[in-house]
Amino acid sequence: MDCTIQNRVELFRSYMSENGLDAFIVVSSDPHSSEYVADRWKCREWLSGFDGSAGTVVITADKALLWTDSRYWLAAEKSLAGTGFELMKDGAAGTPSITEWLSNNLKKGDVVGMDATVCSVVDLGTWKAPLASCGIKTEMVNDPFDVLWHDRPAVPLSMAQIMPDEIDGESASSKIARLREAFKKEGVDGMVVTMLDEIAWLTNLRGSDVEYNPVLVSYMLVTDDYAVLYIDDCKLTDDVKEYLQSQGISVARYSGIWQALKEYDKETLMLQPSKCNAAVALSLGEKSVYRNDSPIALMKAVKNDVEIAGFKKAMLSEGIAMVKLLRWLRPAVEKGGITELDVDGRLTELRSVDADFRGLSFATIAAYGSNAAIVHYEPTPADNAVLQPRGFLLLDCGGQYVGGTTDVTRTIPLGELTDEEREDYTRVLKGHISLAMAKFPKGTCGTQLDVLARQWLWQAGENYLHGTGHGVGHFLNVHEGPHQIRMNNMPAHLLPGMTVTNEPGLYKAGRHGIRIENTMLVKSYCETEFGSFYELEPLTLCPIDTTPVIPEILGADAIAYLNAYNAMVCDTLSPYLNDEERDYLKEITKPL
Amino acid sequence: MDCTIQNRVELFRSYMSENGLDAFIVVSSDPHSSEYVADRWKCREWLSGFDGSAGTVVITADKALLWTDSRYWLAAEKSLAGTGFELMKDGAAGTPSITEWLSNNLKKGDVVGMDATVCSVVDLGTWKAPLASCGIKTEMVNDPFDVLWHDRPAVPLSMAQIMPDEIDGESASSKIARLREAFKKEGVDGMVVTMLDEIAWLTNLRGSDVEYNPVLVSYMLVTDDYAVLYIDDCKLTDDVKEYLQSQGISVARYSGIWQALKEYDKETLMLQPSKCNAAVALSLGEKSVYRNDSPIALMKAVKNDVEIAGFKKAMLSEGIAMVKLLRWLRPAVEKGGITELDVDGRLTELRSVDADFRGLSFATIAAYGSNAAIVHYEPTPADNAVLQPRGFLLLDCGGQYVGGTTDVTRTIPLGELTDEEREDYTRVLKGHISLAMAKFPKGTCGTQLDVLARQWLWQAGENYLHGTGHGVGHFLNVHEGPHQIRMNNMPAHLLPGMTVTNEPGLYKAGRHGIRIENTMLVKSYCETEFGSFYELEPLTLCPIDTTPVIPEILGADAIAYLNAYNAMVCDTLSPYLNDEERDYLKEITKPL
Repeated sequence: MDCTIQNRVELFRSYMSENGLDAFIVVSSDPHSSEYVADRWKCREWLSGFDGSAGTVVITADKALLWTDSRYWLAAEKSLAGTGFELMKDGAAGTPSITEWLSNNLKKGDVVGMDATVCSVVDLGTWKAPLASCGIKTEMVNDPFDVLWHDRPAVPLSMAQIMPDEIDGESASSKIARLREAFKKEGVDGMVVTMLDEIAWLTNLRGSDVEYNPVLVSYMLVTDDYAVLYIDDCKLTDDVKEYLQSQGISVARYSGIWQALKEYDKETLMLQPSKCNAAVALSLGEKSVYRNDSPIALMKAVKNDVEIAGFKKAMLSEGIAMVKLLRWLRPAVEKGGITELDVDGRLTELRSVDADFRGLSFATIAAYGSNAAIVHYEPTPADNAVLQPRGFLLLDCGGQYVGGTTDVTRTIPLGELTDEEREDYTRVLKGHISLAMAKFPKGTCGTQLDVLARQWLWQAGENYLHGTGHGVGHFLNVHEGPHQIRMNNMPAHLLPGMTVTNEPGLYKAGRHGIRIENTMLVKSYCETEFGSFYELEPLTLCPIDTTPVIPEILGADAIAYLNAYNAMVCDTLSPYLNDEERDYLKEITKPL
Repeated sequence: MDCTIQNRVELFRSYMSENGLDAFIVVSSDPHSSEYVADRWKCREWLSGFDGSAGTVVITADKALLWTDSRYWLAAEKSLAGTGFELMKDGAAGTPSITEWLSNNLKKGDVVGMDATVCSVVDLGTWKAPLASCGIKTEMVNDPFDVLWHDRPAVPLSMAQIMPDEIDGESASSKIARLREAFKKEGVDGMVVTMLDEIAWLTNLRGSDVEYNPVLVSYMLVTDDYAVLYIDDCKLTDDVKEYLQSQGISVARYSGIWQALKEYDKETLMLQPSKCNAAVALSLGEKSVYRNDSPIALMKAVKNDVEIAGFKKAMLSEGIAMVKLLRWLRPAVEKGGITELDVDGRLTELRSVDADFRGLSFATIAAYGSNAAIVHYEPTPADNAVLQPRGFLLLDCGGQYVGGTTDVTRTIPLGELTDEEREDYTRVLKGHISLAMAKFPKGTCGTQLDVLARQWLWQAGENYLHGTGHGVGHFLNVHEGPHQIRMNNMPAHLLPGMTVTNEPGLYKAGRHGIRIENTMLVKSYCETEFGSFYELEPLTLCPIDTTPVIPEILGADAIAYLNAYNAMVCDTLSPYLNDEERDYLKEITKPL
């Protein structure tokens, strides 16, 4: 039986010894390189009991180990206690890497197993070469948990919904035609699409197979003359089947992808080695053509006019909910007893009145005071601060709306602030505004602009270690590429029509955390003798609190931007508010 | 005989047919990937008559072609007229690349020759693969010009000079010991050093084999237990030989490198494929280990305290010369008849009074008015503008001093300016100052900071297409890596002790060109809970003219920086000036 962690590890060891494996590496992903993994693929969690989002398990005949990074050391220690698992603090001095540990603890000729259906082609390369140089073999197997995990959740089975052209602005058949043009440029006969948001975009279908991500678990094979969607039949109504046929897409069962790859009838098929699972590449064999960038990711990232209009509608809806929340918040906190989870719940309630609201785009971060300095903090019933009328509440939240996905962060003063809190808020805001005001030539990537958001923190010897911005899907995943604004090199150019967040922050352990985020749209700025220049338009419609600002630090140009932004928010939202709400919004958006 | 271009091409064709070659690619470089090439290696110029710095010749049985980029189209057209050479406008629409042209004009089985001694390993790869895919073979030969060019200049033979520890701050033996540490990290047994500035740095020797670059033509082979300098014996006095021996460096003749590589007695030898000539890699064969980055380049880039003190002394000397020049310039222009070349000559004369001055670090760019908008403009006796008392003179110049190399650009108003000139000057200066004021964390590369210098131009839909900054050698090459500040990705981190220029510009064809450049030093700024932060200190000591500035555009922070910089220049230089010069300097550096 598999009811305790020890039982599960023993079960797994039996499987290993039956299959001649001396060790096994269990990763945390699903077959589609999803950021959020459906329950069916939480195999590492089932095996180890550890439920953090990042972690890798290694099992040998007499050892069970979990590697995880510093965010999770405390939680993992608690969770692994008494299970026989050993915690390997990834990134700590003296902790060996997985390959180092395996090299030192296995002998020549030993075999390490990996699940080809959830390891990417790149993962495979990362493990295989260093182990091979120590004489240790690697063997790819297909999903050992299929037989070991007896009450394993099924592949999620949400129903597919068609997004009409009025929402998506381009038919699936037109998108597929554009993809086929890309095949010509890349010199390939087709592409296997494994990322769920790419399939959702390409087919104009949405589902709810994965939390926060309106996608359908599926594969797709598109060539110069056919397109097949591999998906469980029960997800498709007759209408959807008819629709797919009308777009030139035929349907086969989800598990049919493996046979289709083995029998692939053309010369070459493109895949993305960092995103595509190894089983796909192994099934294809020599017909695989590796390309780091997916042409679909780029096409999806550049929004058309209909999608942009949908984003603006979603932002309006979100803005109204946020103003109502803000108006409720401070008096409620002053009365007392309001917790982080109360804010989360209230906000979701306020969002839900919109008919187009389809759920959150990620778990709301409502973090009070020093909780906001903890990266990836999420309140839980067990760990849920009561808000006090002083300091900051950091609120990072977003919704899925038919027509657009939102992502906004505000740092909300609940009462008295320290000088440090005011200065830190001002520097983060000044960085946000410097980036928001940027103009840049065609060919610029996010890495080049990142410093604009960080420069005022750097002047004070401060920094934040997350990215400054990411793409946002259109009623799709809240994080999407290929463009990003980061310190490290992200070569994808920023192009008109792309959405990108602008979210500098500052986190001081034990004190406070600050982040201010708008979702922006890249658009044309001017054409000159020096070429085409672009700029950023804020899509988010939510007032930015001016009361913590130290005007001498923010400076005249940024103050002018802030006042204009708040005035625009006030003008845009006011027609949708009642008198009291309108007066409140006018008051909090008055110029600094 | 080889006295006309036609004769030379015919001679070359005889060589080709004797050696079974159907085409030959003649590049412009030397065996050491030098930026400036000694006369001996100006083979492309000898063969085609075209003397621009960039250009590649292709010869077949009936065609002679020269590819060069847009900077040189006009000059190349003139130069090639009547020679039988055809100009291929590199970068123009419709111009095939060299490999495209060869693929279309040769037949399967044809053989293309290249000179392995001057093509880099990367060059070789760039040509070979696409030709091979068309069934065209490539053959590497060793220096065909050795027999064809009967009065070819010899390998330059300047005398080696020892830089004592008081100048270099670290002995050659200590540098070699550090290099051997790097071998351990890289897992190699040694390194073949082909770049002349790397050899000069490593040995603490200087020469004058190449214009502007105080280097000695040589190779070096350094392993974990020996170091050999391959250099012509006549360059070394007995003192130098003794010195080299004392540093653990033995000496062999320049051409001895080939035999040494063939007989190399260890397992692995590191080389940089983009910098190392193909003949080296071919001689070594399978013992070659490719590494993109040279450990010497990084060690050389980080200056020690003695080197930094030397830089400051050189900057003082340069600053004095520049102030004297500026004081002379405007009255001289008002009197009339002063040309660009007069300015160049006067400046060199003023520099020469310093006993440590060893020559220019590059050809002075003294460009008046619209000449300054021409990239790489250099006045010549035939093309030498007379300065008028209006508009800008762009002066980009630098010197070689024992102790340091300098590189400075000033845009000098000679009288009345247009509003556009004033605004452009202000935006360029504001960018220069924004970068100069930057603070940044450990781990930052130049690409991340580049936008700081460009942002105010981008706001106006303007840009410049050259880099913003490069490293500067210590009494060595004025351009050195590995760090650069550019729009494209340059991953080398900026480290304390590195020199880097800060030189934004703006060029408007037919109107004017502006560039303002200081050489900066990366130094420590602060240590905080967020890590180590660095800043930039200006090394250049030359007043920046405030009269063209539009204060409302420059802004209060940049004005404060400008005033402080000019005051620092005035304070530092004043003790070395006579009363009239001092008064002049005080006047031109008074706060804006």
